[in-house]
Amino acid sequence: MDTRTGLPVVGMVGGGQLARMTHQAAISLGQSLRVLSVSPDDSAALVAADVRLGTHTDLAALREFAKGCEAVTFDHEHVPNEHIAALEAEGVKVFPGSAALVFAQDKGRMRERLAAMGAPVPRWQRVGTAAEIEAFAEAGGGGWPVVAKAVRGGYDGKGVWMLAGPDEAAELVATGTPLLVEERVPLRRELAALVARSPFGQVAAYPVVETVQRDGICVEVLAPAPGLSESRALEAQQLAIDLANALGVVGLLAVELFETDGGIVVNELAMRPHNSGHWTIEGARTSQFEQHLRAVLDYPMGATTLTAPAVVMANVLGGAPGGISIDERLHHLFATDPGARVHLYGKQVRPGRKIGHVTVLGDDMTSVRARAVRAAKWLQEGV
Amino acid sequence: MDTRTGLPVVGMVGGGQLARMTHQAAISLGQSLRVLSVSPDDSAALVAADVRLGTHTDLAALREFAKGCEAVTFDHEHVPNEHIAALEAEGVKVFPGSAALVFAQDKGRMRERLAAMGAPVPRWQRVGTAAEIEAFAEAGGGGWPVVAKAVRGGYDGKGVWMLAGPDEAAELVATGTPLLVEERVPLRRELAALVARSPFGQVAAYPVVETVQRDGICVEVLAPAPGLSESRALEAQQLAIDLANALGVVGLLAVELFETDGGIVVNELAMRPHNSGHWTIEGARTSQFEQHLRAVLDYPMGATTLTAPAVVMANVLGGAPGGISIDERLHHLFATDPGARVHLYGKQVRPGRKIGHVTVLGDDMTSVRARAVRAAKWLQEGV
Repeated sequence: MDTRTGLPVVGMVGGGQLARMTHQAAISLGQSLRVLSVSPDDSAALVAADVRLGTHTDLAALREFAKGCEAVTFDHEHVPNEHIAALEAEGVKVFPGSAALVFAQDKGRMRERLAAMGAPVPRWQRVGTAAEIEAFAEAGGGGWPVVAKAVRGGYDGKGVWMLAGPDEAAELVATGTPLLVEERVPLRRELAALVARSPFGQVAAYPVVETVQRDGICVEVLAPAPGLSESRALEAQQLAIDLANALGVVGLLAVELFETDGGIVVNELAMRPHNSGHWTIEGARTSQFEQHLRAVLDYPMGATTLTAPAVVMANVLGGAPGGISIDERLHHLFATDPGARVHLYGKQVRPGRKIGHVTVLGDDMTSVRARAVRAAKWLQEGV
Repeated sequence: MDTRTGLPVVGMVGGGQLARMTHQAAISLGQSLRVLSVSPDDSAALVAADVRLGTHTDLAALREFAKGCEAVTFDHEHVPNEHIAALEAEGVKVFPGSAALVFAQDKGRMRERLAAMGAPVPRWQRVGTAAEIEAFAEAGGGGWPVVAKAVRGGYDGKGVWMLAGPDEAAELVATGTPLLVEERVPLRRELAALVARSPFGQVAAYPVVETVQRDGICVEVLAPAPGLSESRALEAQQLAIDLANALGVVGLLAVELFETDGGIVVNELAMRPHNSGHWTIEGARTSQFEQHLRAVLDYPMGATTLTAPAVVMANVLGGAPGGISIDERLHHLFATDPGARVHLYGKQVRPGRKIGHVTVLGDDMTSVRARAVRAAKWLQEGV
């Protein structure tokens, strides 16, 4: 507890934009997020008052960081699971805990567990050789191309490969990355179901959204998912709730889904504020960032209702170098669309890097989407 | 400019809740608010990364603080006007400038200027003796009681006295406080009109709200003001726009108004984010805090449209000592009303001190208001 305020201290490991936006939410709750940041120039470190410098792979740094925190949570999945278990053994409240987080850290463990639960997953297999990949493609995997994924550490399209045939398989295996392969699911589109669960066991589910990816990076999120049937939406929410309960998640759980002609299958899990939930800052009564804090502190969950009939978030990626400055782009965007809600992360622009997002709200999904895409393009390309 | 982000630095003098919430808004714009705070435990200093300790009456501290800021602005009106003028003379962009801010700092200057413009103000007079107050009451002032105000420095009911007769007038004059007196306006209710103006001259006006005061402190704000005619609302907005232009305000201008049977009269002016605008965080497309930043940076103004048909903000005042902790109260409130939006300022509880506010949004003003009042009462009294 912060003795100056009588309110709890939450520590977040990692200083990226998720920690930055969680700090923003913490301020409303009378709190100040404690951030473990690798660099003082990290996105969250630029704006938070209580920044500790250190890396998430250093158990001593994690121990020191956790002192005085009511709960420790994460901006990313890269903290070694054994470090989390060590903190837990010492009495630190870490959410999500090591037993849950492993399923977001290890794609193999996740798929095994989901399959055992009877949850819908693509056909998949751990592989160690090109011959195993070839056998998978030709037998159970539905033929080439097959999808290969690094078992650990992938994000934003990194760690995912579409293998056209045996030569590419051999080349990838030669890198030594621990891999699994998956059938290429004939998907209509991608969806995401976001829930939050508290230690008490209360679960709050957000409306199911459609996510639009380009080059493996989420570029747009449409809330609620257009044209999704009530029964399919409920099925996705129920699946996310069941997974949160079964895996013992505390905090947010984002379930990335493929929608196929026949139903839904789970693609990936994340146990933290997630890009597919950024729209909730303005688009839901309680943002995912506040909800995550409420969950890890065992507060009752906040309302997840939409604040407008149509909400679209578009990511702003770093564009090519040159052109007008980000500040000038912001001027132009604000002049063009006074209702666009901008979130910039204070990050150096690098091509393809997520440097911010824009959210637009309104009554009509088509026009809201067009505005959001245009706004993101202004910030991205300056035109 | 912050060379790490390519985005501007705004400095705010004063570390109270207005600076705290402005920092929260700055984060979305890719910025980190620089705060000049008297104590490291001040509301904004608890959450901001770039805090400089110093007092607003120290010109050297102000000079040092302003270095590297694109614009300097204020959390309160108490910076000596001559210090602001000194900074301006040295090329610092201070918004609102000294020539505008004087009308928010000096109630006599404000009334003289407004009267000269033909803007509606109560009958008033500067007074130095009890005899002058008596003469005002008996001649032009409409009889006892009369309202006496400290010319400078009042806030939240402090610096305002209702004088029942000559004895109380004599007692007040004896304190030596520079005073003015005003007729007691036969008001129906109080309204507030909030606008923001940029150096370029763009002005954005928010919907006119009703403010409810108790013991001179704002306790509720209803947006939009219930039952206000379109013509009266436009009149109030136009008045605020005219004042912002005439006085050369840059940033926010809150015009506190009395509604009478015959029309509206100006009560007070504030040139900063204002309690009557806290509802805009969730209730308007652009919050007053972001709007203030956009204005002082000469960005185009954001949309001021309501996000729900009825929005009510209720202040949380410090209650009597004892009872359950603020953290427990928050648990109870969240369990009672998952849709209530809470803002706590991280301030020590003292009876009557503003320690936070709650905003509720919905379709029906009566039920929204009841929820907001109940939520504030939970946090205030723990029952």
